[in-house]
Amino acid sequence: MSVLVVGSTALDSIKTPWQENPRLLGGSASHAAVAASFFGPVRLVGVVGDDFPRRYLALFERRGIDLEGLQRAPGKTFHWSGEYEVNMNNRRTLKTELGVFETFRPALPPAYRRTPYVLLANIAPELQHHVLDQVVRPRWVIADTMDLWLNIALKPLIRLLRRIDALVLNDSEARQLTGEDNVVVALRKIHHLGPRIVIVKKGEHGAILSGPDGLFLAPAYPLDKLVDPTGAGDSFVGGLIGYLASQPGSLRRNLRRAVLHGSAVASFCCEGFGLTGTLKASLAKIRTRIRAWERMTRI
Amino acid sequence: MSVLVVGSTALDSIKTPWQENPRLLGGSASHAAVAASFFGPVRLVGVVGDDFPRRYLALFERRGIDLEGLQRAPGKTFHWSGEYEVNMNNRRTLKTELGVFETFRPALPPAYRRTPYVLLANIAPELQHHVLDQVVRPRWVIADTMDLWLNIALKPLIRLLRRIDALVLNDSEARQLTGEDNVVVALRKIHHLGPRIVIVKKGEHGAILSGPDGLFLAPAYPLDKLVDPTGAGDSFVGGLIGYLASQPGSLRRNLRRAVLHGSAVASFCCEGFGLTGTLKASLAKIRTRIRAWERMTRI
Repeated sequence: MSVLVVGSTALDSIKTPWQENPRLLGGSASHAAVAASFFGPVRLVGVVGDDFPRRYLALFERRGIDLEGLQRAPGKTFHWSGEYEVNMNNRRTLKTELGVFETFRPALPPAYRRTPYVLLANIAPELQHHVLDQVVRPRWVIADTMDLWLNIALKPLIRLLRRIDALVLNDSEARQLTGEDNVVVALRKIHHLGPRIVIVKKGEHGAILSGPDGLFLAPAYPLDKLVDPTGAGDSFVGGLIGYLASQPGSLRRNLRRAVLHGSAVASFCCEGFGLTGTLKASLAKIRTRIRAWERMTRI
Repeated sequence: MSVLVVGSTALDSIKTPWQENPRLLGGSASHAAVAASFFGPVRLVGVVGDDFPRRYLALFERRGIDLEGLQRAPGKTFHWSGEYEVNMNNRRTLKTELGVFETFRPALPPAYRRTPYVLLANIAPELQHHVLDQVVRPRWVIADTMDLWLNIALKPLIRLLRRIDALVLNDSEARQLTGEDNVVVALRKIHHLGPRIVIVKKGEHGAILSGPDGLFLAPAYPLDKLVDPTGAGDSFVGGLIGYLASQPGSLRRNLRRAVLHGSAVASFCCEGFGLTGTLKASLAKIRTRIRAWERMTRI
């Protein structure tokens, strides 16, 4: 079944001590859509400026991603510049130019309105609401967010939590949202805010899924080379919903395996700048990584 | 089979914003010995001063811990004072008084020399060597360490790595020892220094076992209340070797399950000050926690 992905489509310029990578394809929706596209059809909702490279559109098309919902607006594409320190542990933002993103109002093409699986990738909560207002009886809705929205748009974010099936956020965001240091207690508090499923991302330490079947503790696939974690969280949730949408049977039964598929795609994402790591993956390679993961977690 | 534990036997005074806990039973060997005692006989090698409370000796005895190797020396017991901040994430040392520990030379009673399982708990590497010099053909030797020894006793620690079967250390120590940020690469480098088994402890994020069967990724048992993590690492390795020594069959086959038993005991340790959390555990409760862990990690 199809997955609708809404979020940012951006150009990322990522500097390291050794290398400059100007104007890579980035943004939450780009990473999530490509991640989901390993498993089935994807519909992308976003906006790009008239400087958006044609080769990036071609890249989406090669992945079979439907671009009818991708608006082309006069002006510049959202552009993020950041820099990593030597040990790759710290990243700082050099510049954020919103460009056409500043006035973006996602408008769903009529053909998108009945998409069963909806991913509200990281984007302002008001825009996530606006997309939800346009979809008709979706089967499953998951939202991602970031600390910025907790700081400047907490109210619409809290309202959003009553409208979604699942929320994904990282551990520091879970602490910020609940004022609770302990992740188990934080998860409980987030459930009380609405979502039946909550997934806390912990980067190299894996993820915790909390839902009707209790907790699922998923260690991350161990990488011996981390090139660029930008977009790993977006790839995680994209892979997760892509896998879920592709599977017959009970969504609840497929959820744990969906977390693994998301983790596997995210691990590929970390192995290259921008989308280059993810694009080296394939369904077969993702499955190989999951089998290796199963060997590493079996008692 | 018996486990020999050598390390520090101390009094810990632990302050929190709400409570003072003066002169609790602490030290690496105390925590490790009590943790191992859930599974079988333990022999303790350490030193205490003439101020060491009789009730702590009685506590060891009630746990069936053999105290023939626990020296009583004139002077004060090793005393550590520390303080936690409000969120329990940061602990700082207020005072360390070595007392009788300053001149401690572990001397094994003849009856201890053929103990098959040896745990060199956190203590100066020179003393760990000194104990190894006295044991006769042990079946399995595991050593723990800490950043202090990496800073002031690196050479004897490196020499020790050629004499042991397994090393346990935390993730920041693994980085410090190898100069390598990536834990997978760090593990490889530590194997090159000697031990066939290396276990990296990551606190609330679990542990990674690396050995002849590849990696084993073990998430920590999720706790909704962390009271005091002091001694959790010692409890982990104590529980691990205690379980291993109690099991028939191939050591290699039991190793992953031993990591879980160590984690389970460590989780109890975190639920109380000093040894109070650990002492509320039982073999039945440990097994219940492992079964819960298995439900939380099954796909």
